[in-house]
Amino acid sequence: MFEVREYPLTDDVAYLPNGWAYKVDMLVKSTDVPEGMNGFQVGRKSVAAVLSDLSTKGVKPIFMMLSFAFQTGITNAYITEILNGIKQLASKYKMILVGGDVNKANDTVIDCIIAGKYKKKVLRSGARIGDSVYVAGDFGLTTIGLDYLLNKKPIVNEKLKSYALKAVYEPDPPVNFNIEVINTGYVSASMDSSDGLAYTLNEIAQQSNVKIVINNFPMSEEIKKLIESEGRDPLNDSLYGGEEYQMVFTFNQEKDFLLNKLAKKHNVKVFKIGKVENGNGVFLSNGKKIEKKGWVFNF
Amino acid sequence: MFEVREYPLTDDVAYLPNGWAYKVDMLVKSTDVPEGMNGFQVGRKSVAAVLSDLSTKGVKPIFMMLSFAFQTGITNAYITEILNGIKQLASKYKMILVGGDVNKANDTVIDCIIAGKYKKKVLRSGARIGDSVYVAGDFGLTTIGLDYLLNKKPIVNEKLKSYALKAVYEPDPPVNFNIEVINTGYVSASMDSSDGLAYTLNEIAQQSNVKIVINNFPMSEEIKKLIESEGRDPLNDSLYGGEEYQMVFTFNQEKDFLLNKLAKKHNVKVFKIGKVENGNGVFLSNGKKIEKKGWVFNF
Repeated sequence: MFEVREYPLTDDVAYLPNGWAYKVDMLVKSTDVPEGMNGFQVGRKSVAAVLSDLSTKGVKPIFMMLSFAFQTGITNAYITEILNGIKQLASKYKMILVGGDVNKANDTVIDCIIAGKYKKKVLRSGARIGDSVYVAGDFGLTTIGLDYLLNKKPIVNEKLKSYALKAVYEPDPPVNFNIEVINTGYVSASMDSSDGLAYTLNEIAQQSNVKIVINNFPMSEEIKKLIESEGRDPLNDSLYGGEEYQMVFTFNQEKDFLLNKLAKKHNVKVFKIGKVENGNGVFLSNGKKIEKKGWVFNF
Repeated sequence: MFEVREYPLTDDVAYLPNGWAYKVDMLVKSTDVPEGMNGFQVGRKSVAAVLSDLSTKGVKPIFMMLSFAFQTGITNAYITEILNGIKQLASKYKMILVGGDVNKANDTVIDCIIAGKYKKKVLRSGARIGDSVYVAGDFGLTTIGLDYLLNKKPIVNEKLKSYALKAVYEPDPPVNFNIEVINTGYVSASMDSSDGLAYTLNEIAQQSNVKIVINNFPMSEEIKKLIESEGRDPLNDSLYGGEEYQMVFTFNQEKDFLLNKLAKKHNVKVFKIGKVENGNGVFLSNGKKIEKKGWVFNF
């Protein structure tokens, strides 16, 4: 409907030719906030979602704007909690607040706009045959946490329960790690996984016109065992979840050592989960197709 | 709560040191949309409000982002109308859409973010003794229109009714005129009047630490007579309204001819309504104080 030209609206952030990039994300209480999430976590999540998208595309956050709509009846204490959650991440990444707006509405809404600078653009469409496929962070935990919160599915193991709830309530994208990884120059495609891993992998494969073959679990051995101990399928939980706010990317396999160095430096877990091949679609190494679907949550 | 340093959050737009400026404004259906306003007008208003703020500060709009929340049950036809309204102003001012977000909520919300470039900064605080005080456009019409829509106060004259409703439904800030006026370099203070003229004048007087004396009506003779014919007070209607989205500004009185030239070029009405003097507060020339109050509308 508008002129878009060099700014592809289909990708995750708006890269402008002058080295700046922008991202906006709206958090809506009635649809994005699961039961039990407190105000601090709500505010924090509204910023974390944008930081995940930006850093996954190599953009260093610089300044932010915030538009709020507060539901009638909301308390000042709750608003303060939201602001404290926002402030935590704004301070952590030294972002400057330059503007905003405050309104009343029939829902509570936080629209977070962040601008930053990039050195290298990375699109969804650049995956190259021969690259390795990586994820940062454990996948599967948000699926289990949301299953517990939304569907009342019990989690027997207390450790897993605490990991799973933390993953849902306090998504923590490794912003500086993500940016450094992109700036190595060896990431050919990357995307934030908030729509689910199966969806994200299919999106990269489609846009890059390649085949992706998955041959490893996107989680630590510890988490895998904990998930199995619940009688759940770790692969299914990691593929068809969402809300992880972690980076899924393809990387030059001859430069793996650089990635491992950065992971160590930033204390971030990375998992090599597959490879890019000639063809189309996303498959397990046993040939089973991974469909392009996420788990649509309705809070 | 955040570092703000050179970006004063108390002013209308965020001027960044690199020549870019930003403004965000959230339109909420349940509080910003009066009865009878159609989808096209809703979309249009969400952009007009931001354009008014930016152009009043000399910022030429360049690109935009849009975050939407749509209320459950909203029709596709209504969404299309909203987008068409947005598109009208985006096309008129050749803005490029670079990003956005779409959500579901218990209200319909449009958060419009526009970035643009400025040559000269104009704050609320720069009014100088001896300057003339100006407004662009007729004031008073939105007060009458909103009184009709919200309080069912009849408007007898059909011409006035159509002017008043158009002022409410289709605010039309003269963007290019505003920017050219600022770029003359003779505007010492300016502010968008969406909070009402009395409020705006008081804000400029306070921030500039000057007295403003009002000695003329901020409307054409035609509008003044039409308002009087309804048994209403044109001065009261023009001072204590709001939602005009017009520029209120102080201008070097020796350069009035430049302003009149621009008004003619852009076919915009300007009214010299008063002068800046030594002292404090806002007064009529008969000495009556104009209080800092707007009309708070509750739709």
